[in-house]
Amino acid sequence: MATTRATPASVVALRFDGTTLSAIDQTGLPWDERRLELRTAEDVAAAIRRLAIRGAPLIGVAAAYGIVLELAREPSLETLERACAVLRGARPTAVNLAWAVDRMHEAVRNRNEPGGDRMNAALDEARRIEAEEEAASGAIAAHGADLLADAPRILTHCNTGALAAPGRGTALAVIAELAERGRLRHVLATESRPLLQGARLTAYELSHLNIPHELIVDSAAAGLIASGAVDAVIVGCDRVAANGDVANKVGTYGLALAAHAAGIPFVVAGPTSTIDLNTPDGAHIAIEERDPEEVGSVAGQRITQEHTRCRNPAFDVTPAALITALVTERGIVRSPSSDALAAIPK
Amino acid sequence: MATTRATPASVVALRFDGTTLSAIDQTGLPWDERRLELRTAEDVAAAIRRLAIRGAPLIGVAAAYGIVLELAREPSLETLERACAVLRGARPTAVNLAWAVDRMHEAVRNRNEPGGDRMNAALDEARRIEAEEEAASGAIAAHGADLLADAPRILTHCNTGALAAPGRGTALAVIAELAERGRLRHVLATESRPLLQGARLTAYELSHLNIPHELIVDSAAAGLIASGAVDAVIVGCDRVAANGDVANKVGTYGLALAAHAAGIPFVVAGPTSTIDLNTPDGAHIAIEERDPEEVGSVAGQRITQEHTRCRNPAFDVTPAALITALVTERGIVRSPSSDALAAIPK
Repeated sequence: MATTRATPASVVALRFDGTTLSAIDQTGLPWDERRLELRTAEDVAAAIRRLAIRGAPLIGVAAAYGIVLELAREPSLETLERACAVLRGARPTAVNLAWAVDRMHEAVRNRNEPGGDRMNAALDEARRIEAEEEAASGAIAAHGADLLADAPRILTHCNTGALAAPGRGTALAVIAELAERGRLRHVLATESRPLLQGARLTAYELSHLNIPHELIVDSAAAGLIASGAVDAVIVGCDRVAANGDVANKVGTYGLALAAHAAGIPFVVAGPTSTIDLNTPDGAHIAIEERDPEEVGSVAGQRITQEHTRCRNPAFDVTPAALITALVTERGIVRSPSSDALAAIPK
Repeated sequence: MATTRATPASVVALRFDGTTLSAIDQTGLPWDERRLELRTAEDVAAAIRRLAIRGAPLIGVAAAYGIVLELAREPSLETLERACAVLRGARPTAVNLAWAVDRMHEAVRNRNEPGGDRMNAALDEARRIEAEEEAASGAIAAHGADLLADAPRILTHCNTGALAAPGRGTALAVIAELAERGRLRHVLATESRPLLQGARLTAYELSHLNIPHELIVDSAAAGLIASGAVDAVIVGCDRVAANGDVANKVGTYGLALAAHAAGIPFVVAGPTSTIDLNTPDGAHIAIEERDPEEVGSVAGQRITQEHTRCRNPAFDVTPAALITALVTERGIVRSPSSDALAAIPK
């Protein structure tokens, strides 16, 4: 793995050149715009684990290319199995990772021809996944902007833009589309502790997009929503269970409660690859607990005594009943439920 | 104003020796346990503004001594008026500040005897306020521990201990009392961005008290409450309006929503000096907006691009309907309302 400098304006989170997956190292943004040059599945898995590559749709695409990287070196079925296992285990909550690995596995495993074809089958499937997710981003943006045409002041959480998904992202793609249509006045972005994806990444993307915005601490969101400062909340998602419950960045559930209490829309945006019909409801979603040190420090600076124990759930679950609509590339699912999700057109 | 070092174990936030108000500089905790030696009302007001002295009951007591400091130097009515104005304006949201200043003004202004008596009247009243608030802390602890005897796992927000109020504090005094009674198993403490009073001060106090605790980011609270990890939430308050609405540290409202949704008690603890019958409801409470730089940086370290605009409301309002009980030194007010607050025994 080597590193190069990205041009300041580039927000192309991933780029595959046939032998290397080039990825913006998101842990350094907004100050350090380095790119990682990843050459093995383990490189990709490590980048996903430490959130250098993050965002549910993006980690799915990165995992697909991670499998291509391995098969390019040794196109055996053993290699396929090993690469799939390494990547699938990198993070537990976002279903897109397992979904993409499953698609890659399926596309490659029955190719019993000599090696090259396995690698080509993998490359074709990875490019297909990436192209589909990029197209999904555009469709999500359009559907979401139709839905929120009359919500000029939007609050969003964590980062869901071009750094989180191919194309323009998910929730932030909707915001960008609203801005292009002249329907957006202002965005409130939460800082998204512990790793500050809002402060570091969303503010960076909104700045590149010339969208007026203000940053707030996470716990200020509920009071500002109650005060009438926000017309709608839109967030991304890491896994949508079969009943419409949504796992997303820790703090999402609190925003949904506040939006519900204020009577404003709470909208979740994500590609259908994030829907997991095999998980019946939110109680069955594994919530990743990350290194407590992410809580005990900010940007390498200790914020509490050395001996203080910390707890660090990375996600929470928002019950379907609090979700006004789920925006996917295939359309808008109002009041998500088992029936509504099962009825999404293929 | 001079500074000295505090002994590590001392959590005596304020100490008045007749000519100087010695205060722990809470901005440096838990690492730097310096004390400030304050000699003028402006010293005290400045310490309150920059949160070196903080916590609603504590800033009331500090303001009272600030008036004593001025009258000790020049016991005129002009001095009284000027000191009252300087201190009353230091922070807008916590009513204890105005309440204590009003009491001091009332106790001193009709003393038309030569100077010394004004100073003595002021000193008597300041000591009375401090003693009353210290006694209130003990009574709040006892009432609160009666109320929460069957809530072994408690979540609290910001800092409400001996650093925030004379005696053992308010909400944290209840927690300390529960621990002494052997009824407490575990505390979840929110970090309380932007200035991390939870991470810096509450964890420090809980550690001194040998109470098992874990620190979480603010936005993790709602999901942990929903998951069943918490039996009750208890917080302090900066102003209780006549209808029972409560202004408190930003983030409190979101915790109240989460507790309500989970069906667990949401308890507010504070002395009756925090109740402001002249403010009809939460909509009439002035919410202090503090320096945006508090959001854009953590411990002096920038967390977002230089040009990112931030917004920094320091408080939010929790509607009375979400409050299970208000614990005061005069007893427990269940389901706070105008009638219930008006009926608190004098």
